[in-house]
Amino acid sequence: MMSRPDGPSDDPLSPRTQATLAREAQRALGTCSAERRTAVLSKLAQLIDERRGQLLAANAQDLEAAAAEGLAMPLQKRLGLSESKLDGLRAGVLQLAETQDPLGTVLRRTELDEGLQLRQVRSPLGVLLVIFESRPDAVIQIGSLALRSGNAVLLKGGREALHSNRALVDCLRDALSSEGLLPDAVCCVEGRQAATALLDEDALIDLVIPRGSSELVRSIQSSTRIPVLGHAEGVCHLYLDAAANSQMAAHIAVDGKCDYPAACNATETLLVHEAFLPQLPPVIEALTSHGVEVRVCPRTAAVIDDCQPTTDDDWRTEYGDLVLSVKTVTDAQEAIDHIHAHGSGHTDVIVTDDQLAADNFLDQVDSASVFHNASSRFADGFRFGLGAEVGISTSRIHARGPVGIDGLLTTRWLLRGSGQGAGDYGDAGRSFTHRHLSPDTEP
Amino acid sequence: MMSRPDGPSDDPLSPRTQATLAREAQRALGTCSAERRTAVLSKLAQLIDERRGQLLAANAQDLEAAAAEGLAMPLQKRLGLSESKLDGLRAGVLQLAETQDPLGTVLRRTELDEGLQLRQVRSPLGVLLVIFESRPDAVIQIGSLALRSGNAVLLKGGREALHSNRALVDCLRDALSSEGLLPDAVCCVEGRQAATALLDEDALIDLVIPRGSSELVRSIQSSTRIPVLGHAEGVCHLYLDAAANSQMAAHIAVDGKCDYPAACNATETLLVHEAFLPQLPPVIEALTSHGVEVRVCPRTAAVIDDCQPTTDDDWRTEYGDLVLSVKTVTDAQEAIDHIHAHGSGHTDVIVTDDQLAADNFLDQVDSASVFHNASSRFADGFRFGLGAEVGISTSRIHARGPVGIDGLLTTRWLLRGSGQGAGDYGDAGRSFTHRHLSPDTEP
Repeated sequence: MMSRPDGPSDDPLSPRTQATLAREAQRALGTCSAERRTAVLSKLAQLIDERRGQLLAANAQDLEAAAAEGLAMPLQKRLGLSESKLDGLRAGVLQLAETQDPLGTVLRRTELDEGLQLRQVRSPLGVLLVIFESRPDAVIQIGSLALRSGNAVLLKGGREALHSNRALVDCLRDALSSEGLLPDAVCCVEGRQAATALLDEDALIDLVIPRGSSELVRSIQSSTRIPVLGHAEGVCHLYLDAAANSQMAAHIAVDGKCDYPAACNATETLLVHEAFLPQLPPVIEALTSHGVEVRVCPRTAAVIDDCQPTTDDDWRTEYGDLVLSVKTVTDAQEAIDHIHAHGSGHTDVIVTDDQLAADNFLDQVDSASVFHNASSRFADGFRFGLGAEVGISTSRIHARGPVGIDGLLTTRWLLRGSGQGAGDYGDAGRSFTHRHLSPDTEP
Repeated sequence: MMSRPDGPSDDPLSPRTQATLAREAQRALGTCSAERRTAVLSKLAQLIDERRGQLLAANAQDLEAAAAEGLAMPLQKRLGLSESKLDGLRAGVLQLAETQDPLGTVLRRTELDEGLQLRQVRSPLGVLLVIFESRPDAVIQIGSLALRSGNAVLLKGGREALHSNRALVDCLRDALSSEGLLPDAVCCVEGRQAATALLDEDALIDLVIPRGSSELVRSIQSSTRIPVLGHAEGVCHLYLDAAANSQMAAHIAVDGKCDYPAACNATETLLVHEAFLPQLPPVIEALTSHGVEVRVCPRTAAVIDDCQPTTDDDWRTEYGDLVLSVKTVTDAQEAIDHIHAHGSGHTDVIVTDDQLAADNFLDQVDSASVFHNASSRFADGFRFGLGAEVGISTSRIHARGPVGIDGLLTTRWLLRGSGQGAGDYGDAGRSFTHRHLSPDTEP
């Protein structure tokens, strides 16, 4: 067992030591009783409440420095904590404390033979490295999810939120200590060098979760062998079918584009069935009246005046802004082929009153989320009812689409026998029963 | 849509073209009806039967060349097909044809609001690259699993099995064609260069499955960004607790070591509680009488004579042979710490009559499979009742332990609305119901 080296406590630990300590602390956190993890969460909620003065003071220090350095206003805004934000964080932690602990849940139970029973149970993933920008709220959101699921988490926040992040991480660590658990299950990673060093530790870290710009995600994906949960891009499509209701089309197009244009689930491309073209102008007017810059392909230009033409680049661009490209297609298959060729497999939508056309689109489109008559903006862990959101994944491996706490879990196979060897089966005489039992059966 | 370039049909396609064609063929295979995938499997079984003469002749060609080149005898043995092997393959394919098609199965169903219902459904992973050695049987085993789960598969076999693999892949492709599906959902990749090129195609290939030596697996893991399903090593432990029954200990030790020493789930290290030491000699005698070379730590040497001493290397070695290292520990915690420090997270076993000690071991040991009073050799998809086995994974991401067809599947989120935008919720007045429904509810 490794322990913190002696010496002044503010000596920074090496990234590898941090990760090693985190792994050890995780083993304790992941195998203690559910009640203790719940108690840590309750304590955390209490500390957020008790320390609001300290937390806001630390945040004020960061905000002051950010203003002095002339940090862009949207970033300054995301950096800010407030009484009401702290209340929201505390409420979220209390909600998790009341959520059923997922560890040890039996997913599958099989009798292999008399006196030989197999269970597949939920287990923590292990050590997570979360790399995020600006928002110090992420410390509590991700930290509390990690505690509930028995994972350790190394938190690398932005330099601009240093004091806020430290104060929040202290709440998490002190909550662990107060329940007699090792505080190193949560720690702050500071400095880009330390984060880069951790991305090499694929034997110590099980999953990297980047929360931030697509540049951040892409750069992390290309610099580590550790699995990365996330998405570099969200190029989401809205396909208006021949049988689309035009009022619904306008509502869903405006919501998809304008509700929060910087989000990954915002709509970037409108695909229009040629038979819908006569009804397109009011949809485009609704968009432009909301300040959207519309770019059109040549076929669309025949019915829509005064718009900039699209270039090939438009079809693969995540604008993250009030810009939308529009393409007219001959049929649904051309729309689906366009989505497969240019999309990012994030979220794609059909609007139609034709049930068969909708079924076909939902069957064929190979994206994490595929919607009928609903805005792309619904692709979100909270809206999906998953509770807290870890992120949205466009990977096909492990977790896909909006990811809740399930994305932080793996399984183990536990077998209880009564002395059996594999050689006892087959030619040696015994045979397997392979009786699938209800997971809830008593062992 | 891409199509095979014109020209002589035996012009080899570039690896990228193969992968692109496989992706297109997969989209058709993954979205056609379950009945059509079943029909392909039935046809495949029929072709294996009809073509047994051709298949055995192709295999004879490979066997002749292998003998002439002086290929090692175990490899020659694995290379061989026979009437009975073909019967077994055919039976496996027919069994899969009768298995319920997994695609479209609803895993989760949530009403987000009235007229807004979410489903999480099973979907194919996409395009698999399987790299295997010697055994041509793998073509049919993996190929049929891929067909059942709607995946395309690029098969890279060993040079020594070239003719056998081609003849078997032809059966798979002809079965697809006979049902009007694109044959490129299954194809043979030939030559090391082609395989290396495919390992770079992370946009076209979703999962790599290496089946072969740990050198093969390690070399693939270190040369691709595509997720790899597998395990490089199986350093499995058997811990004999203070309260172990000594007859059971001997039976499980002999089975774990000797049933199939080359397997990844064979036992490599015996950890012995010091209180069990007086009962250890008959266990060791049972092992040596089965031809096992036993290596012992200094504390074990006090009760076991004439054995080679262990070195530090022994604790992390997968012998793959009739060799076993033995270490005496002071208590269960030392055994668990040893497993975490030196193990590969594959399969670890406790033998004990003490239920509390067993529970503690099963709770604490962080390996894919953890067993009580049963041999490590049970860690196997068939023995676990998973049906055909894709492989055994020591990754904590996606699939862990013995992996059946589930490891070849992902999910998609399908939402059916009636015109909702995300901006209609919250301050705008609507609120989510988030009612969790039974997955089997009618839509």
